[in-house]
Amino acid sequence: MHTTTPAFRKTTETFASGAKTLPQRYFVSPEVFAQEQAGIFSKQWVLVGHQSQIAGTGDYIVQQVISESLIVIRDKSGEIRGFYNVCRHRGTRLKEDACGHTSTIQCPYHAWTYGLDGKLIGAPHMDDVPGFDRAEHSLHPVNLALWEGFIFVNLVDTRNASTRLRNPTARQAERGGYIPLEEWFAPLAGKFSHWNMSILRSAKRIEYDVRANWKLMFENYSECYHCPGVHPMLSKVSPYDSAENDLCEGPFLGGFMSINKGKSLTMSGNACALSVGKIENLQQVFYYSIFPNMLLSLHPEYVMVHQLWPQSPERTLILCDWFFHPDAFAVSDRGGGPDFNPDDAIEFWDMTNKQDWHVCELSQQGIASRAYQPGPYSSRESIPAAWDREYLRYVR
Amino acid sequence: MHTTTPAFRKTTETFASGAKTLPQRYFVSPEVFAQEQAGIFSKQWVLVGHQSQIAGTGDYIVQQVISESLIVIRDKSGEIRGFYNVCRHRGTRLKEDACGHTSTIQCPYHAWTYGLDGKLIGAPHMDDVPGFDRAEHSLHPVNLALWEGFIFVNLVDTRNASTRLRNPTARQAERGGYIPLEEWFAPLAGKFSHWNMSILRSAKRIEYDVRANWKLMFENYSECYHCPGVHPMLSKVSPYDSAENDLCEGPFLGGFMSINKGKSLTMSGNACALSVGKIENLQQVFYYSIFPNMLLSLHPEYVMVHQLWPQSPERTLILCDWFFHPDAFAVSDRGGGPDFNPDDAIEFWDMTNKQDWHVCELSQQGIASRAYQPGPYSSRESIPAAWDREYLRYVR
Amino acid sequence: MHTTTPAFRKTTETFASGAKTLPQRYFVSPEVFAQEQAGIFSKQWVLVGHQSQIAGTGDYIVQQVISESLIVIRDKSGEIRGFYNVCRHRGTRLKEDACGHTSTIQCPYHAWTYGLDGKLIGAPHMDDVPGFDRAEHSLHPVNLALWEGFIFVNLVDTRNASTRLRNPTARQAERGGYIPLEEWFAPLAGKFSHWNMSILRSAKRIEYDVRANWKLMFENYSECYHCPGVHPMLSKVSPYDSAENDLCEGPFLGGFMSINKGKSLTMSGNACALSVGKIENLQQVFYYSIFPNMLLSLHPEYVMVHQLWPQSPERTLILCDWFFHPDAFAVSDRGGGPDFNPDDAIEFWDMTNKQDWHVCELSQQGIASRAYQPGPYSSRESIPAAWDREYLRYVR
Repeated sequence: MHTTTPAFRKTTETFASGAKTLPQRYFVSPEVFAQEQAGIFSKQWVLVGHQSQIAGTGDYIVQQVISESLIVIRDKSGEIRGFYNVCRHRGTRLKEDACGHTSTIQCPYHAWTYGLDGKLIGAPHMDDVPGFDRAEHSLHPVNLALWEGFIFVNLVDTRNASTRLRNPTARQAERGGYIPLEEWFAPLAGKFSHWNMSILRSAKRIEYDVRANWKLMFENYSECYHCPGVHPMLSKVSPYDSAENDLCEGPFLGGFMSINKGKSLTMSGNACALSVGKIENLQQVFYYSIFPNMLLSLHPEYVMVHQLWPQSPERTLILCDWFFHPDAFAVSDRGGGPDFNPDDAIEFWDMTNKQDWHVCELSQQGIASRAYQPGPYSSRESIPAAWDREYLRYVR
Repeated sequence: MHTTTPAFRKTTETFASGAKTLPQRYFVSPEVFAQEQAGIFSKQWVLVGHQSQIAGTGDYIVQQVISESLIVIRDKSGEIRGFYNVCRHRGTRLKEDACGHTSTIQCPYHAWTYGLDGKLIGAPHMDDVPGFDRAEHSLHPVNLALWEGFIFVNLVDTRNASTRLRNPTARQAERGGYIPLEEWFAPLAGKFSHWNMSILRSAKRIEYDVRANWKLMFENYSECYHCPGVHPMLSKVSPYDSAENDLCEGPFLGGFMSINKGKSLTMSGNACALSVGKIENLQQVFYYSIFPNMLLSLHPEYVMVHQLWPQSPERTLILCDWFFHPDAFAVSDRGGGPDFNPDDAIEFWDMTNKQDWHVCELSQQGIASRAYQPGPYSSRESIPAAWDREYLRYVR
Repeated sequence: MHTTTPAFRKTTETFASGAKTLPQRYFVSPEVFAQEQAGIFSKQWVLVGHQSQIAGTGDYIVQQVISESLIVIRDKSGEIRGFYNVCRHRGTRLKEDACGHTSTIQCPYHAWTYGLDGKLIGAPHMDDVPGFDRAEHSLHPVNLALWEGFIFVNLVDTRNASTRLRNPTARQAERGGYIPLEEWFAPLAGKFSHWNMSILRSAKRIEYDVRANWKLMFENYSECYHCPGVHPMLSKVSPYDSAENDLCEGPFLGGFMSINKGKSLTMSGNACALSVGKIENLQQVFYYSIFPNMLLSLHPEYVMVHQLWPQSPERTLILCDWFFHPDAFAVSDRGGGPDFNPDDAIEFWDMTNKQDWHVCELSQQGIASRAYQPGPYSSRESIPAAWDREYLRYVR
């Protein structure tokens, strides 16, 4: 229970200057959470996976976005499509499992059947219903597009927006703030080409259920001021004060840190796979946050990606995937060269992730107190402050 | 979390014509749920058991109706009575167990003691309280009546209604919509006499905790369009397209289906007990829904009855009882003819029930989506549509 | 779910006269609960422990008061202090464990470090933040004072109240109703000196999670009318009708009961330790409720203290501590005379506590019914009635 009549005088909210942490309500208020769900997670492009996870026709994943279950599936033409996981007959959930392979999408209740393109192709006993038209009962689609091999969806309903408007601002307004994916990611064009992200393959996913507001994980990810105390092992290999930022304002934020010579971010300290691409400097690791739900961590030999899924003001589900070059797996498949040991990286980051989630949970607890007041960011926390500024553009 | 600003244009709500399923709010809204509890479950006759379950003086069952715990008990004259399970002293719950036998109703806290007729007969240390009158501290009664041996209660408080009003409409209005049980069931007079329901005896109860709105179970029960995909075993013995309805509008709905020659709705396919009465056609099974909480399934050799107890918009407790002719048990008691095998029917329907609850749960999930829109009922779903129409008479 | 439109006519609320139990809303309403948290638990002195539990410099306990986590710690001067468990940097919870020992209070996130007096003594990388002043970032303190060795805190924020106002009423009004501890406990001065409470030592703590409103436990503690039925073993040793009250109105209520000659309130019936002090009459046990969260039970050879912590209208956490004379432990430490057997008392009261919590839970269930009406208190329930009257001074 949070006090509505604070016992402490409110400080002037100078957080907009970037100098202080966000006020309490942003971390505990159901109203702010509802604003975030409506204004951010229902309107922006959110990460749901990588194309390598549904490589063949009929392969699909099911992902919850806000409260919506979506089917993301590769159709017969090889195109990836997204649909609401809801039968048009009596509303039944169509697919229950998190991923799978199917030739058609058939409802388990009355056997209405849809093609991989969402068109209704079978509906028993409906032909004798006057005026019933199959064409009007396709699955509801969702906007879907790819960036560097990653699959993003956008829940804005753009089906009725005029596509003929030449003026981009007018078009965007009519579409409820919808921005095409290629426009959104234009500022990052070419920046990550060395890492070959579109061809990488996932070796592992770990899910975390964190009792903290999703913004605390972004703020945590965006600074290494906490590393000496929280991550003793990471700090030994990658000095906390080596951080340099090259994206300092806007929806994409971050930079890079050095890795000690001959070392890698693994349990053993050795590289655990082939390099993912023609990386110039093998002694650097890059960390970027992609607003609003992606953390992108680029290592010489693997790419780690977090998806953040807010469940309530005080709870977040996090999916963490580790991606490697497909040739690395091939080596392993042949009986294995000594180089491919994905667990060496996965264990390292699983440990480090848990260290982070724990301090985020402690922050959530303290921030809920009447004694909490926005505190001063240090000079090492300029990226968290920039992330807060960007966030406040979407939520008042 | 359900979206308050739907992303999809609302379809014109043509559900009242019976053509489409109910809009989303009827399945997810706490406000609609509160209306249902106040307007239906607090005002109508609801099934709580069968008289054979409390055969002797002092036998009782405890049943929760909406949020109210009730004691249903047979008194010394053999009459069945209903009381709120609340001591008149400090409000303590009197009976904790689901059923039992007792000679008086004694409060476990300060030992206030009530007779089986609800009168306060013992209250230590109260005689020296000025003005205290035992007669004013009887247990609060609840309306209770029997139909075909089944026990129904009605939570309308009729104690102060004038019983002298001759005009039934005026009387009913004064009583908050209360209709005497015999009036309510008058349309069914004689319809079920062949099944001897008042003398049957329960062999088994199974409880189900279903994560779906209670109306989905009524809609599910009211059609066999879903049977081929959901109930392969049932469909083999009782063809899904053999359904004929003889109660097509109002609070009592349903009809009958054929059973293949020589077969029965049991795991083995054989009859599992003596016939419950002089059934004309042993190759038929009758299914009726009795508004608002009873499903009545009449087989040649047993009667299955479901009680539905809504717990929230998205959760329903279901009690399922199987009743047989008392002579069937007698056969079993004597060491058993080969005929009495109640588990053969119970297992069959336990399996079939679970198949139904599962698709109801899937519907609940999909209906909660912003993509859900009322969908078209097929020609095989006229009874669900009629049930929806009847339901809408009680809730706006 | 609780009915908002009661089915039963409201009785005139004559509870203020002490004659009847409190109306339903006081036990189930979230609004009343919020009033209690704001008007009682945030404004009055509440018990959080005993000084013997943090005997050395740097010993601390962490206690939740309403929704606030507090650190209660002994500083270098030997003084006991209380602080909100919230870092001034990013709000992080500082101490996670229920008790411990520490030389400084260091934040686990970014290593900000506070002295035992709450002053910020270390904050890495903050020196280059313009205008940052350590002196402005001490831990937020909480009012703390001792009574008879017991530690009480008061969440009223008195830091800005003028301490120069001579008129106590004006001072109190300005301080939001704050009354200094010594004023609050003045009526009890000297009353408990025989029991040596400030030097006693705790032998054991048991926590109980009770599904009942906290007031039901006070009402339960305040009468022995329930003892014959609920506590057969207690009733044998201490006759339920021997109760005499010597504090009959106000925030401190209770009295004493006799213990049968040569008996003690233990499983064996024998005294289990040295007497805690120069007790005049070893055949008496004293029971007092200290508003709003302390139950004080004084036996010849031990003192039992309950802390009550309301969690919701329908749930209360209870901490129960048993205190003995330090010399009793010494005997035990030397290999043990036959006299010191604390478990003999602890088991006795653990059993008795659970009997009480169970009937309180049953009352909670029944009071939530629409059939509940305030019931008449008997002549043996004058202290519960007085407690209700005192309580109603704080909540409307």
